[in-house]
Amino acid sequence: MTEFEPERKEVSISEFFDKNKQMLGFDSPQKSLFMTVKEAVDNSLDACADNGILPEITVRIEELGKEKFRIEIIDNGPGIKRTEVENSFGKMLYGSRFFQERQSRGQQGLGISAAILYAQKTTGIPTEIVTKVEKEMTAFHFVLEIDIRKNSPHTISVTPEIWDVKSGTRIVISMKGKYVSGKQSIEEYIRETAIANPHSTFHLILPDKSIDIMRSISEPPPVPIAVKPHPHGVELGELISILKDNERETIEGVLEDKFSRVTKQVAKTIVEKSKLNGKKINKLSRDDFEELMKTIKETEFMEPKKDCLSPIGSEGLFKSAINSFREYHPAYFSQPVIKGPFVFSGHPFLVEAIAIYGGDLPKEDPIKILRFANRVPLLYQSGSCAITRAISSLAWNQYGFSQPVKDQIPVGPLIVAVHLASTKIPFTSEAKEAIAAVPEIMDALDIMLKGVARQIKTMRKKEAHKGQVEEKFALIELILPQIAQKSGKILKLEPPDITPIISKVMGVVAFREINGELFAENYTEKTHSFKVVLKGEERFTESVKNLKPFQKVKLNFSKEIISSTEIYVDLPEPILLGAYSLPKVFNDE
Amino acid sequence: MTEFEPERKEVSISEFFDKNKQMLGFDSPQKSLFMTVKEAVDNSLDACADNGILPEITVRIEELGKEKFRIEIIDNGPGIKRTEVENSFGKMLYGSRFFQERQSRGQQGLGISAAILYAQKTTGIPTEIVTKVEKEMTAFHFVLEIDIRKNSPHTISVTPEIWDVKSGTRIVISMKGKYVSGKQSIEEYIRETAIANPHSTFHLILPDKSIDIMRSISEPPPVPIAVKPHPHGVELGELISILKDNERETIEGVLEDKFSRVTKQVAKTIVEKSKLNGKKINKLSRDDFEELMKTIKETEFMEPKKDCLSPIGSEGLFKSAINSFREYHPAYFSQPVIKGPFVFSGHPFLVEAIAIYGGDLPKEDPIKILRFANRVPLLYQSGSCAITRAISSLAWNQYGFSQPVKDQIPVGPLIVAVHLASTKIPFTSEAKEAIAAVPEIMDALDIMLKGVARQIKTMRKKEAHKGQVEEKFALIELILPQIAQKSGKILKLEPPDITPIISKVMGVVAFREINGELFAENYTEKTHSFKVVLKGEERFTESVKNLKPFQKVKLNFSKEIISSTEIYVDLPEPILLGAYSLPKVFNDE
Repeated sequence: MTEFEPERKEVSISEFFDKNKQMLGFDSPQKSLFMTVKEAVDNSLDACADNGILPEITVRIEELGKEKFRIEIIDNGPGIKRTEVENSFGKMLYGSRFFQERQSRGQQGLGISAAILYAQKTTGIPTEIVTKVEKEMTAFHFVLEIDIRKNSPHTISVTPEIWDVKSGTRIVISMKGKYVSGKQSIEEYIRETAIANPHSTFHLILPDKSIDIMRSISEPPPVPIAVKPHPHGVELGELISILKDNERETIEGVLEDKFSRVTKQVAKTIVEKSKLNGKKINKLSRDDFEELMKTIKETEFMEPKKDCLSPIGSEGLFKSAINSFREYHPAYFSQPVIKGPFVFSGHPFLVEAIAIYGGDLPKEDPIKILRFANRVPLLYQSGSCAITRAISSLAWNQYGFSQPVKDQIPVGPLIVAVHLASTKIPFTSEAKEAIAAVPEIMDALDIMLKGVARQIKTMRKKEAHKGQVEEKFALIELILPQIAQKSGKILKLEPPDITPIISKVMGVVAFREINGELFAENYTEKTHSFKVVLKGEERFTESVKNLKPFQKVKLNFSKEIISSTEIYVDLPEPILLGAYSLPKVFNDE
Repeated sequence: MTEFEPERKEVSISEFFDKNKQMLGFDSPQKSLFMTVKEAVDNSLDACADNGILPEITVRIEELGKEKFRIEIIDNGPGIKRTEVENSFGKMLYGSRFFQERQSRGQQGLGISAAILYAQKTTGIPTEIVTKVEKEMTAFHFVLEIDIRKNSPHTISVTPEIWDVKSGTRIVISMKGKYVSGKQSIEEYIRETAIANPHSTFHLILPDKSIDIMRSISEPPPVPIAVKPHPHGVELGELISILKDNERETIEGVLEDKFSRVTKQVAKTIVEKSKLNGKKINKLSRDDFEELMKTIKETEFMEPKKDCLSPIGSEGLFKSAINSFREYHPAYFSQPVIKGPFVFSGHPFLVEAIAIYGGDLPKEDPIKILRFANRVPLLYQSGSCAITRAISSLAWNQYGFSQPVKDQIPVGPLIVAVHLASTKIPFTSEAKEAIAAVPEIMDALDIMLKGVARQIKTMRKKEAHKGQVEEKFALIELILPQIAQKSGKILKLEPPDITPIISKVMGVVAFREINGELFAENYTEKTHSFKVVLKGEERFTESVKNLKPFQKVKLNFSKEIISSTEIYVDLPEPILLGAYSLPKVFNDE
């Protein structure tokens, strides 16, 4: 037997990720370029979010030579204190968010350092950072590299620089890369980022095109507030060490102090129920701890506070969906569905989604899934992501969709956009491309997606019915006008306005747009009451009560809304469509 | 604007992975149990491999209570030196393999520490390690935990213990877990591990069953030898820093010293071609470095040495395939295909695969893909693995398989087992579940898989033809025997041996088994020459030259081989099948 005496040693975190770039998403020149932009933009958005700034971010990519690119990202964030710049960029696992229990994009203190590392490995060119905080007169221009063995920044130069902004950060990284457009491209990443951040403006200067995406919401979302972990997430071993770390205090005291939603009263009850009244922590036996754990699991606590989370929200999702998918002329937008907050391992999270159906969306392709985690779009590793898996595992045939292979993505004209917001996203790797299938999250996604799917089912019903009714009207609208034309010719008169006639004939109310305003006109003998509703947006609704014969009433939808979506009328009898193309009309059974 | 002053600090690697268990595969109780067994077994196999030991490993899993398990792994490896035990188990990123350029399962020094961490977090129970090295009289019994903030071992006790083995290691971990059988289970992991390690024996004692898997090869594979990185893998920035780290030496000297396959002569030529003769390293300009890099890329080097790799090999793959898939009675085994070594970022790698086709394999299901990396089966994250993606991206219809959705796994009665062996597997995460789509690896997989697919195509052709010929013989073998029986009855005689007659009638050679030995008998008027071949194993072949009329010849296949696979005959005319069920007969066009 050949005796083998291995030499063992410790590895620095930079050495580890230097040798495992792919774990941070740097597994090809194309991917590396993408990841660098992503990490920098995510940092900028986080910095703005923490300070209630409306982000305006510029991304510029220039080709320096074969497979060699210069990447520049400029933001209007708060800037970084001079003393913190070097460690923040040049040291892995250094950052402000890791220990904070609140929603943010970055958390690891790895991403941007990885980009700098990759740059210096592939081109040998150090990274430049210019940053200005509001308090300082000038900005400071850093040129730095990472000392891989020490995992510490190696600064080449620092110089003051005049930058005429209130505050902001500019980073320039030159690395080996490959630029692509289309799927999984930097453009796609920015476009989807805009969907999840409707309050942000982006300027993209790419080798092959320039794009500006303007914000559609002018209020920054509220700044997420840090919370303590929720007691239902704690594990036994964790509980033991938390208590032992504070053994001078009382059990009640520690419970109340270290966990959210544990009031003095609740803490007292827990200790009593566990029969540990007055016991010293350092006197607790293993059974005592297990009893305490049992009681905590059985105790009902208030659900975690929402204000550590920053969901996109119903309005945000709806506006983003309308702006981003107008080109498909979708037939329906679902109600945004929001579920939570729930808890996994002490971390609050919520899930939200919206579905876009029909129109020009391809009927034969797999449905399009947009995945978001803490307002960041996920473009890679779809197959191993909790969101994709939750969607695939629904029984889609129940909702009228075909699913060629069981547990695979269904086929149909549908987009589902899903957002997971949490104080801690359980990513499958540092590249943060896929969400791990944590049971609690899978359950939450399942509940929420079923809610979305039920709406989609209704949409399909509506669409079918609508088809029939429209046929009927199409016919009438085809024939009567021709008669009108002819009779007009014969009598050498202007063809009469036939809308009233059709309304009378059909015994239904008429809709008509008169310079951008929408009117309902009743030419029947009966008095009508009905509800006019924005499709997929039951919040924008207008009720018309007792519209008497030969009365007309103005509907107060803004032009923008009218042209941005479809309108239907919610009452037993069909309503006649006038000359005006929107709204389509049908009877909503 | 609410001014926000973030407090930044450094995070220890244990704190990082404590908060990101899922990156190490610990994302659910079920997965955690699985990962713990996997990490421990991988370590044992590595230790044995380094020392040329034939592994014999016992895995015992006991349920201690609700979602609480005791996991025990015992190996016959070399044991761990007393002074190294604590750091090896209680410190993350500590190990012997990280800087070594040779094939091994573990490399990160993370896995087993992660299991210990998870155990103490969930149950508060420390881990026990008993280990004995050959030199020592006694084993030592360690009880330890991990100090998460310091990322260092916290030893509770060390005691000598009598363990009557030459050497070995025993580890006991008690953690929250969930035991499942079937897909992605511990059993499946061990069974597939046996496929990739035919020289290993496993004893499994599970809550619901016990299994023993014996080795099918009794020679340990050669111990992989460490190599230096290959020059074609180096990046510019890397080259610069390697040279600068050795600036007292000559450029030639560094090239020859730091890279494999760079001889004194080659180094000299490179420096000359780059016009850097006699230049001092600290005098080199950026352009000089770029010129040097260019020359290196253009220079042809010998391909990397294979002896840093430990492929399963043609015989290993074939034996494993036969043993593991006999239950399906497959119609064909492909030739194992091995390609490489190739290089990515300086790391040598090779790919090998075998395909198993037909028999009772399900015709309607997606084909079964077995993925292996450095002899470790990959059971999770299939969708995002380079192997799955390479297989899906083949145009399977060209090879007679249906592919319901493009770039998805094809459907058919097929198993493809693929192994990537490398000094460095680019896993997508520390959980080591999926291989990143590194371009060089994708290319190698593509070449190799096409080789396999071409064989499968041939198999399908053979099968079709075989069908026809067999029909013909089936008929004759049905009718003639009955005639023989009848005539026998009438003449009150033993029914005659009709094999010679059929042989004569059909003008083909007959096969017959006479007590376990296989004979070819020629009852025709012609002299026949032909080749008898083991299906899917063209290496086991026997040629019969000029078998004259009324001659018989004994074939030297061992009984084991005859019954372990099918045999076909490789010549223009069909060969008659005798009483003996194997071999089936067909004309191999």
